[in-house]
Amino acid sequence: MNDIKLALRSGNPTTKVDIKTSAGTVSIGDGSCTVIAGPCSVESQEGYLEIALLLKELGVQILRGGAYKPRTSPYAFAGLGEAGLKILEEARQLTGLPVVTEVIDIRDLDLVMQSCDMIQIGSRNMQNFPLLREAGRCGHPVVLKRGMAATIEEWLLAAEYILNEGNQQVVLCERGIRTFEPLTRNTLDINAVALLKEMSHLPVLVDPSHATGRRSLVAPVALAAKAAGADGIMVEVHQRPDEALSDGSQSLNPGQFALLVSSLQGINAAVGRLAN
Amino acid sequence: MNDIKLALRSGNPTTKVDIKTSAGTVSIGDGSCTVIAGPCSVESQEGYLEIALLLKELGVQILRGGAYKPRTSPYAFAGLGEAGLKILEEARQLTGLPVVTEVIDIRDLDLVMQSCDMIQIGSRNMQNFPLLREAGRCGHPVVLKRGMAATIEEWLLAAEYILNEGNQQVVLCERGIRTFEPLTRNTLDINAVALLKEMSHLPVLVDPSHATGRRSLVAPVALAAKAAGADGIMVEVHQRPDEALSDGSQSLNPGQFALLVSSLQGINAAVGRLAN
Amino acid sequence: MNDIKLALRSGNPTTKVDIKTSAGTVSIGDGSCTVIAGPCSVESQEGYLEIALLLKELGVQILRGGAYKPRTSPYAFAGLGEAGLKILEEARQLTGLPVVTEVIDIRDLDLVMQSCDMIQIGSRNMQNFPLLREAGRCGHPVVLKRGMAATIEEWLLAAEYILNEGNQQVVLCERGIRTFEPLTRNTLDINAVALLKEMSHLPVLVDPSHATGRRSLVAPVALAAKAAGADGIMVEVHQRPDEALSDGSQSLNPGQFALLVSSLQGINAAVGRLAN
Amino acid sequence: MNDIKLALRSGNPTTKVDIKTSAGTVSIGDGSCTVIAGPCSVESQEGYLEIALLLKELGVQILRGGAYKPRTSPYAFAGLGEAGLKILEEARQLTGLPVVTEVIDIRDLDLVMQSCDMIQIGSRNMQNFPLLREAGRCGHPVVLKRGMAATIEEWLLAAEYILNEGNQQVVLCERGIRTFEPLTRNTLDINAVALLKEMSHLPVLVDPSHATGRRSLVAPVALAAKAAGADGIMVEVHQRPDEALSDGSQSLNPGQFALLVSSLQGINAAVGRLAN
Repeated sequence: MNDIKLALRSGNPTTKVDIKTSAGTVSIGDGSCTVIAGPCSVESQEGYLEIALLLKELGVQILRGGAYKPRTSPYAFAGLGEAGLKILEEARQLTGLPVVTEVIDIRDLDLVMQSCDMIQIGSRNMQNFPLLREAGRCGHPVVLKRGMAATIEEWLLAAEYILNEGNQQVVLCERGIRTFEPLTRNTLDINAVALLKEMSHLPVLVDPSHATGRRSLVAPVALAAKAAGADGIMVEVHQRPDEALSDGSQSLNPGQFALLVSSLQGINAAVGRLAN
Repeated sequence: MNDIKLALRSGNPTTKVDIKTSAGTVSIGDGSCTVIAGPCSVESQEGYLEIALLLKELGVQILRGGAYKPRTSPYAFAGLGEAGLKILEEARQLTGLPVVTEVIDIRDLDLVMQSCDMIQIGSRNMQNFPLLREAGRCGHPVVLKRGMAATIEEWLLAAEYILNEGNQQVVLCERGIRTFEPLTRNTLDINAVALLKEMSHLPVLVDPSHATGRRSLVAPVALAAKAAGADGIMVEVHQRPDEALSDGSQSLNPGQFALLVSSLQGINAAVGRLAN
Repeated sequence: MNDIKLALRSGNPTTKVDIKTSAGTVSIGDGSCTVIAGPCSVESQEGYLEIALLLKELGVQILRGGAYKPRTSPYAFAGLGEAGLKILEEARQLTGLPVVTEVIDIRDLDLVMQSCDMIQIGSRNMQNFPLLREAGRCGHPVVLKRGMAATIEEWLLAAEYILNEGNQQVVLCERGIRTFEPLTRNTLDINAVALLKEMSHLPVLVDPSHATGRRSLVAPVALAAKAAGADGIMVEVHQRPDEALSDGSQSLNPGQFALLVSSLQGINAAVGRLAN
Repeated sequence: MNDIKLALRSGNPTTKVDIKTSAGTVSIGDGSCTVIAGPCSVESQEGYLEIALLLKELGVQILRGGAYKPRTSPYAFAGLGEAGLKILEEARQLTGLPVVTEVIDIRDLDLVMQSCDMIQIGSRNMQNFPLLREAGRCGHPVVLKRGMAATIEEWLLAAEYILNEGNQQVVLCERGIRTFEPLTRNTLDINAVALLKEMSHLPVLVDPSHATGRRSLVAPVALAAKAAGADGIMVEVHQRPDEALSDGSQSLNPGQFALLVSSLQGINAAVGRLAN
């Protein structure tokens, strides 16, 4: 643990990450429950703008959507690329909501920066150290997802790479770790959520979609994350999950998502009452 | 999955487990949040009766305490054995609360049955098939903890062993699985809690003490378990954790426990409102 | 590691385990490569005696075969029980070879002792502490398999339970650990074989059948075990693997087994030349 | 498995990877046991040239050495960078041996290409898909290490990314996976070595240094790899391991390495005799 300095709570003030847009500022880590939602991939202009508007109505604070998708197979749909970024820009303009998207190629960072308000570094790149360094210099807030087999210490050291370049706007996102259990895509490490809130001053989100891989588990696990102290969730929503080009089986439909949002508010209020 | 029949939700009514004592009946799986608490081991008559009375005041429904402790090392304190059982009987009489304790030697089952109201089969014995069969014939409710590396399917099949002998009073208890993460003793599989509530008709408890191994994580993780749908928790409490003969570092003191109980009620109420 | 005393190499002479029969003594840990083989289960008198004679001809030193089988499902074939023990006795008489079989119920220990020359404690019972203690008092050599998620330290402490009761005739058997890899039944921990030969004075066997779960991998992995320093192997062989009542997909047929035995001798000779 | 086409054995000829230098061609996968060795990092000109000459004398076929080191902590020594590449070029010239080194930043690929004969893609970049694609177009042979928690299927799909760009010169390198066992740095998946030789036409190496993290285990585990069918090993050697700037505790000194090379030849000969 000796090399974790900037990411530890000890000696550092609690970090609130502010995502600024022309329409105002959205904060993560201010005691509210931030909800980031959207489809796994940006699949088409029409489809993305439709879901973006719907999500805004349902109270989402930040939109997500992949333009560049890291896919296990070279033959799978890997996102629309630059065209996808343009659609994200339109959605941002249409809704006034900030947008987060993943960068997987360090050479695309500048381009991605222009189209979004927060950069996501995904699980497969948690130890892509050149990318971490550039993210530390880019000026945008960064969501850093945990690697599939990364220890909490390694994860905090990955955050340390970003912080050490001068970027204090880092959000950790637990998305499940790899274990022997085959019935779920990953195993959400709920212990890690509670432990990080104790060890680190950085905000912590949970991605219940990747953590479970099963639509029916997304809501209960999201509520658990909130109860354990998470600052919000990052969740996949698709207007027609069964037609999604990726991650359909773990995506909520809008009705399921609306129910989750209202449940989360209930849990958040209960947790808030406990704190007072 | 083909061999899981009696433990699956499909085709079976939801199970409510009733622990009957002279003072009345305590139920697990009736929509309330059952709290089972006590020290890891029964260490002395005086100490156990003291904590038992305290826990009763704090609203605990079932007392726990180990008379026979499975210890990794042959040189570690392994419980008081029969003398410990006698103390459990006294505590039961003193408080009117039912008592659960672990049986680790099949030859002790009859003896253990006389001193307690519910039998615990621990992680290391989840696939001790002769013990499962005898537990299925014993007439007492059984808490079946998940093995450290047991899949959900294997766990349900272990429950199936008990159910298949005619004992329908089975409670599953998730207590963390073994992963690569070294900062916590185990990794609580919160996905499993949500999935079991969907797949099975049996009540599900969570043991946040063994699942985390760290006192400071017990409360947030217990709240998460409730939010994910657990029917209650099983937690280690000791009046002086630093002097405990086993598991001190993961035991709450009474003040911490009192706070947890009240927080749990808040989360339980929020979850209840969601359901209605 | 503080509690491992009797099982550590330091301060203890290298252990050679001797299995004595009326026909002589078979040793494990004397520098040779001991081969224990047989079907997963004793399925019938005729079948077992047939394979036993065949294995004797092929140079097997110890016969294996399960009379009591720990099965994940309560509905699976669980062995012939006492009738299986009688068949093992016949095979022993017919071939003059010693026999090892698993005990899963502590109440059967005396019975099992009478029919076999070495007791096996399986993975699911590695931390069945009462059984370990009784095995330490029973007078027979004991093969102690590693638990599916047991650390090397926990495994040595399980051996310590047996040694501490006065039984020095303990053999460790690595049979694969549980990991995230789904293409093989388990992951053989070859590091553990090399590390145990360094840390402990006890002989170490490898079970390539359970470690891989795939027939085609049994031979290369068995050779690897020998090259890493194992004192022998414990392998499943069936005259008609596709008709086996259990573990058929990981059982060798006699022709494959004969080839493996001769390959093992080649590797053993090469390793022996290295040592001199 | 549906998406693995080019990497599967079925329908494809066995691949021999040829590394060409001015001094001739070194092959991996031709039935010999290829030995790649060198220090973890290139630390200084003098030191690297000294060990390079020594390794040449000891029969090493390919030199390794890191100029760019992926380090968990941002504060650890991360290699000499370009200066390190220049030293590798000198070593190549001095010894006539080909050189392999890791590329961690896709923007450095051209530079790295000029100084080495084979590119290494490390564990942390196994799913850095842009890097895989560029490696597929670069014209150099590629060593692709397995990710710490990558399944065999995911690993073959990562190779498929390279193959699909037209580069057939791909070598797989197993370097241990992450498990719950704390006494070794990783767990060498020896099953995977045997399974890959069956499933794929690509050569398979083993890195016993990272797979164990313990100097004393490197040799026995390397011999095991060869016995299981590996086409060679990639091993860390340092003239003064205790002074190494990285990975000292898992590096062999030259004497230990010389012994390993001669042992490997013994095992290789034994395995060769088996095949004939």
